[in-house]
Amino acid sequence: MIEYVHQHRVRYRECDPMGVVYHAHYVDHFEVARTEALRSVGLPYRSIEDSGIIMPVVDLQVKYHRPARYDDLLNIVTRFNRMPDVRVPIEYEVRNADSDELVATGHVTLCFVDQASGRPVRAPENVLAAFERASIVHSGS
Amino acid sequence: MIEYVHQHRVRYRECDPMGVVYHAHYVDHFEVARTEALRSVGLPYRSIEDSGIIMPVVDLQVKYHRPARYDDLLNIVTRFNRMPDVRVPIEYEVRNADSDELVATGHVTLCFVDQASGRPVRAPENVLAAFERASIVHSGS
Amino acid sequence: MIEYVHQHRVRYRECDPMGVVYHAHYVDHFEVARTEALRSVGLPYRSIEDSGIIMPVVDLQVKYHRPARYDDLLNIVTRFNRMPDVRVPIEYEVRNADSDELVATGHVTLCFVDQASGRPVRAPENVLAAFERASIVHSGS
Amino acid sequence: MIEYVHQHRVRYRECDPMGVVYHAHYVDHFEVARTEALRSVGLPYRSIEDSGIIMPVVDLQVKYHRPARYDDLLNIVTRFNRMPDVRVPIEYEVRNADSDELVATGHVTLCFVDQASGRPVRAPENVLAAFERASIVHSGS
Repeated sequence: MIEYVHQHRVRYRECDPMGVVYHAHYVDHFEVARTEALRSVGLPYRSIEDSGIIMPVVDLQVKYHRPARYDDLLNIVTRFNRMPDVRVPIEYEVRNADSDELVATGHVTLCFVDQASGRPVRAPENVLAAFERASIVHSGS
Repeated sequence: MIEYVHQHRVRYRECDPMGVVYHAHYVDHFEVARTEALRSVGLPYRSIEDSGIIMPVVDLQVKYHRPARYDDLLNIVTRFNRMPDVRVPIEYEVRNADSDELVATGHVTLCFVDQASGRPVRAPENVLAAFERASIVHSGS
Repeated sequence: MIEYVHQHRVRYRECDPMGVVYHAHYVDHFEVARTEALRSVGLPYRSIEDSGIIMPVVDLQVKYHRPARYDDLLNIVTRFNRMPDVRVPIEYEVRNADSDELVATGHVTLCFVDQASGRPVRAPENVLAAFERASIVHSGS
Repeated sequence: MIEYVHQHRVRYRECDPMGVVYHAHYVDHFEVARTEALRSVGLPYRSIEDSGIIMPVVDLQVKYHRPARYDDLLNIVTRFNRMPDVRVPIEYEVRNADSDELVATGHVTLCFVDQASGRPVRAPENVLAAFERASIVHSGS
């Protein structure tokens, strides 16, 4: 439906005494990747929050396949495979940008919450419209 | 089999503009909690690494139930429910220490890897022995 | 005037490929240490924020003397040497809790800002009172 | 001598309950910026480490002028004003990329250490050569 590739260069602060990326940092990269994916379809997350909707993380899953090392360039592939309703499921693949080897896979679910009431709500119209536009572009290409 | 409760005070740097703990930090708390759980049964992780074994994370799962806020005191309940073999599955519950409300649940799998060869190995004898001792103590209490 | 020692166990996620604590993490430890120092004199930071005052960091300095390693226990010595006015200067010493060797020294300046107006303000009365009480206790001991 | 501008988009995980970038993260941005600055003059840090030299941080200073907010684009201006000897002093300016307003200034000193002996050493020849080439280019432009 929507697919976006965000590139990330592994930083010294991310690497642990085994010389590889400490596992928790992939969760941060997932946030950056989905933010840029949404921006690419005209949905900067700041504009969603400005409209009174927040999108907390509901659940999170990561599988680690191969270590990444200092200064490696990573492709964080982000896929929205379904129209969002109350929830937005997102699939991730992290690959070494040079070798294309699979480093990690992941899944994150966000939901829409009305900031004033603190209650879950359905995806706002502008989000649905942006997903529809993006899907047409993708299916047409 | 082994259960351990680690307490953590929520810090300012963990909290995001929604005023709640940013979801990635629970992954860090899980590391601290399992380290202290292993120390409590006589297995400081540093001693495992000193014996040439590293324990990378294989997979990771977190479900977020309720937000935690700045300065909240959290109980990170860590459970090793099975004897380790090549892998060590660990279950987590994060609860507000005052209200006992469930904040998050999680699951992390570690494995044993021989640092020299980079290959998975079975749990070393001293690890198994410590788990057996700890289980007897627990089943006796 | 006020001196407080906060203990911190070095975590895996803090250590870099050199096998030592990555330099940025001391800044986080300083936050934890001053929060606990203020709590120890009856000033939980949350209560300061609840009264409409925030305390952003104005400047920051760290000197690194000796590396700290995974699982080391550190003493973060925090000293408030002056009565706060608009600013609160804080001095830090980080020492290995076993060897007492000096790991790092630091200095952080906070200021008081009225959250509603965004403007710097003088230290609130309850903060000054707590500092005075704490100083009497310390000079008497 | 060498000046380099690294751009950074402020991420959700960096922002605290005041809605602004938590002060410690600038220290991470400084690392990224100097790494990219060195890469731009033909000195990837990984190649320095591969030659047996590590470059720990000796001291660090940050002054905070104006808050940065979620999704702001920042210019991290990095300046090496002197030829490195045993130490490498680096100056930083962080500016809002849209308004050019000054967000923070900083100073970091690195040193060269021989990894085998653990002792400080003078800047290796390839580092000096890269700095000389870069300075000629800059003074010629």
